[in-house]
Amino acid sequence: MRAVDIIEKKRDGKTLTRDEIHFIIQGYTAGDIADYQISALLMAIFLCGMTNDEAIGLTEEMLHSGEVVDLSNLGRPRVDKHSTGGVGDKTSLVIAPVVAAAGVMVPMISGRALAHSGGTLDKLDSIPGFRTNLSLTEFHATLKKIGVALIGQTVEIAPADRKLYALRDVTATVPCRPLMAASIMSKKMAEGISGLVLDVKVGNGAFMKTEAEARELAELMIQVAHGLDKDCVALLTDMNQPLGRAVGNALEVIEACEALRGQGPEDFITLCRELAAEMLVLGRAADTVDEGRATYDELILSGAALEKMREIITVQAGDPRILDDYSLLPTARYQRKVPAKRSGYVQAIDTAAIGRASMLLGAGRLRLDSRIDLSVGLIIEARIGDRVDEHTALATLHFNDAVLVDEAGAVIMQAYRIGAEHTDSPALIKDVLR
Amino acid sequence: MRAVDIIEKKRDGKTLTRDEIHFIIQGYTAGDIADYQISALLMAIFLCGMTNDEAIGLTEEMLHSGEVVDLSNLGRPRVDKHSTGGVGDKTSLVIAPVVAAAGVMVPMISGRALAHSGGTLDKLDSIPGFRTNLSLTEFHATLKKIGVALIGQTVEIAPADRKLYALRDVTATVPCRPLMAASIMSKKMAEGISGLVLDVKVGNGAFMKTEAEARELAELMIQVAHGLDKDCVALLTDMNQPLGRAVGNALEVIEACEALRGQGPEDFITLCRELAAEMLVLGRAADTVDEGRATYDELILSGAALEKMREIITVQAGDPRILDDYSLLPTARYQRKVPAKRSGYVQAIDTAAIGRASMLLGAGRLRLDSRIDLSVGLIIEARIGDRVDEHTALATLHFNDAVLVDEAGAVIMQAYRIGAEHTDSPALIKDVLR
Repeated sequence: MRAVDIIEKKRDGKTLTRDEIHFIIQGYTAGDIADYQISALLMAIFLCGMTNDEAIGLTEEMLHSGEVVDLSNLGRPRVDKHSTGGVGDKTSLVIAPVVAAAGVMVPMISGRALAHSGGTLDKLDSIPGFRTNLSLTEFHATLKKIGVALIGQTVEIAPADRKLYALRDVTATVPCRPLMAASIMSKKMAEGISGLVLDVKVGNGAFMKTEAEARELAELMIQVAHGLDKDCVALLTDMNQPLGRAVGNALEVIEACEALRGQGPEDFITLCRELAAEMLVLGRAADTVDEGRATYDELILSGAALEKMREIITVQAGDPRILDDYSLLPTARYQRKVPAKRSGYVQAIDTAAIGRASMLLGAGRLRLDSRIDLSVGLIIEARIGDRVDEHTALATLHFNDAVLVDEAGAVIMQAYRIGAEHTDSPALIKDVLR
Repeated sequence: MRAVDIIEKKRDGKTLTRDEIHFIIQGYTAGDIADYQISALLMAIFLCGMTNDEAIGLTEEMLHSGEVVDLSNLGRPRVDKHSTGGVGDKTSLVIAPVVAAAGVMVPMISGRALAHSGGTLDKLDSIPGFRTNLSLTEFHATLKKIGVALIGQTVEIAPADRKLYALRDVTATVPCRPLMAASIMSKKMAEGISGLVLDVKVGNGAFMKTEAEARELAELMIQVAHGLDKDCVALLTDMNQPLGRAVGNALEVIEACEALRGQGPEDFITLCRELAAEMLVLGRAADTVDEGRATYDELILSGAALEKMREIITVQAGDPRILDDYSLLPTARYQRKVPAKRSGYVQAIDTAAIGRASMLLGAGRLRLDSRIDLSVGLIIEARIGDRVDEHTALATLHFNDAVLVDEAGAVIMQAYRIGAEHTDSPALIKDVLR
């Protein structure tokens, strides 16, 4: 078998066999096939597509390029959630303890912030002492002990995906459905889960701008999951405004802790509840989604979810006192309000721009190796449909370094479209695909 | 400017600006842009195409990636011919001396054999002592002295093309019209020519299998030539059977020398005459193609063309006595006839297979670094339309090493389709595009 023949086949729109996909992924991981051949193949896949079977094969080969955690000996169903990324999305910090408190195992491997979207690992880093860099052995032990663990990708997990992702990033082959599905699903499947809930974001702050695109990606990921004998449900959810109010790492941890107490922005709480309810069904802790919602409410009200979060923080070497005293989290020195330019109704928010404003303050990273300031960020004060005037704050900036604050403020002002007509806030849950 | 943005633009089917093409070619030649980005771009070009203006820009950037020979101080028009490659095509060896004998300058930079098709440089190598590796200074001096020079590509000429071609070869992006046109035309334009005659081969022994494909490539190359202010004419010519009778390096030199004496296969002589006549028109040595044909006949009849060949061989350090004594050329030790399997008419010949049979005997190269045996090859004894039976030879093999002779014979037998119905030989000149 030769790589050039496989490239030619895909270039001509033909379907690759499982053996050919194996040859490519195995050869690339081992360093036997060069980057320049793989990048030509990636572009051919981008432009000619892949069948569902090819995407399933690709996922499975990427999955088996590294270690696959085996949690089957722990007995219980193992369920995770994956979000395609947005602004202000801190649901993992609420969902993981809730679902684990219900007795479902949650082996969660998360990523870091990139471009305008946040990352769960960075948020967890703002909890003093919290270790996300557990080894796979520690990951396994933590799951066995408390039924949940929140870690970052280790070198053993899906090495083919790391190489491929780095190459896609510099060859304009990132936004390609089968490649995205295989990348996401190979990493998630390597966690040893039995079921997965997908939160596929749609809108101007998401990777997928239209519901049609999001739906196609979601359907493909469900196909891939089923092809690998895993349960999978996908929610299409709105990302035309930030989720909740807080954008920025420590600020989002606070909002998540409040949600574990049943407090905070309605949209954020609703999404946590829906995602958790679906996970509880996949984890056999609820027979119906309605029952899952009731369980969620109960675990919040009883304080069991908050206690599980305390347990997670403690076991992963963080300081659990932050749950009762947010001043123990990194805190920005200054705050400044960004006023509306005119009076009227908020009609639209450029959500990616909000993410970029937060990045300008230091909360995100422009490059993989950028350092971020965990204390900074912003609180959204006005959402779509709200009435504002020149005395109303659109957002409150939390910052330490004044250099880019004016620029961040200007970006936020620009991001808000304000008009005389009232616009309803977009529906949060657009669809659920099973 | 970033390579990834340019890749994305082409991926989305947009037109690259001249600045962007410059950035890519200049950066790649300098080693600032990695192979893996260029190969993704090449695949995007393969699948999304290029406009004529982009192809012209690409050609010009590749041309200027290296040295461009300036022959304008030598005064006369400078005309070359390029063939897209076939089996038994030794026209350059006839055309160059004829056209030079008419006073038109012929600066000819040729290539080597690859896959089933032959290369002018290998043919010239079979003339004892002949030097094709002249430096650009020697090339210039030879042209000044005798008005013609036959050399191989030097390192100074279009380095971008060499890098790109090597990459295309391993990434399944060779058969792509704009990339082919830019590759051919950048090298030819670097010779310092004022006009070019293209021989675009069509058929089962050519790169282009259909007349439509060949026509599109020819039209694009003419556009590119005009975009660079050069005269250009393209002939679409048949490659559904070998050109002439001889296939193999020294064997083809003999056939070319015979043609310079006005003898040999009719199809081969006709094509030499047509191509030379077009070159003479572009070179202002004839007002019409008819006048060009008359000049060709005259230069052959008078012996002037043969004398010019003697001059070329002498000046380029070869042994001119080969013109009068072919036994001074490398000669294979053995000959064997390949008989027809059945009686009937030759209806079709798989011409690429004939090229492969010649390669099996050692006349071609499977890899760029293969050594070839200049003495071996085959003589085609039966052409399309000929009547054959079990006692008729289809071809005569000339060989030194018996190992693969049976295999070569079998390939040739397989290559001939023989049936009861008579089939006319395909028309040699399919069209002329100006």
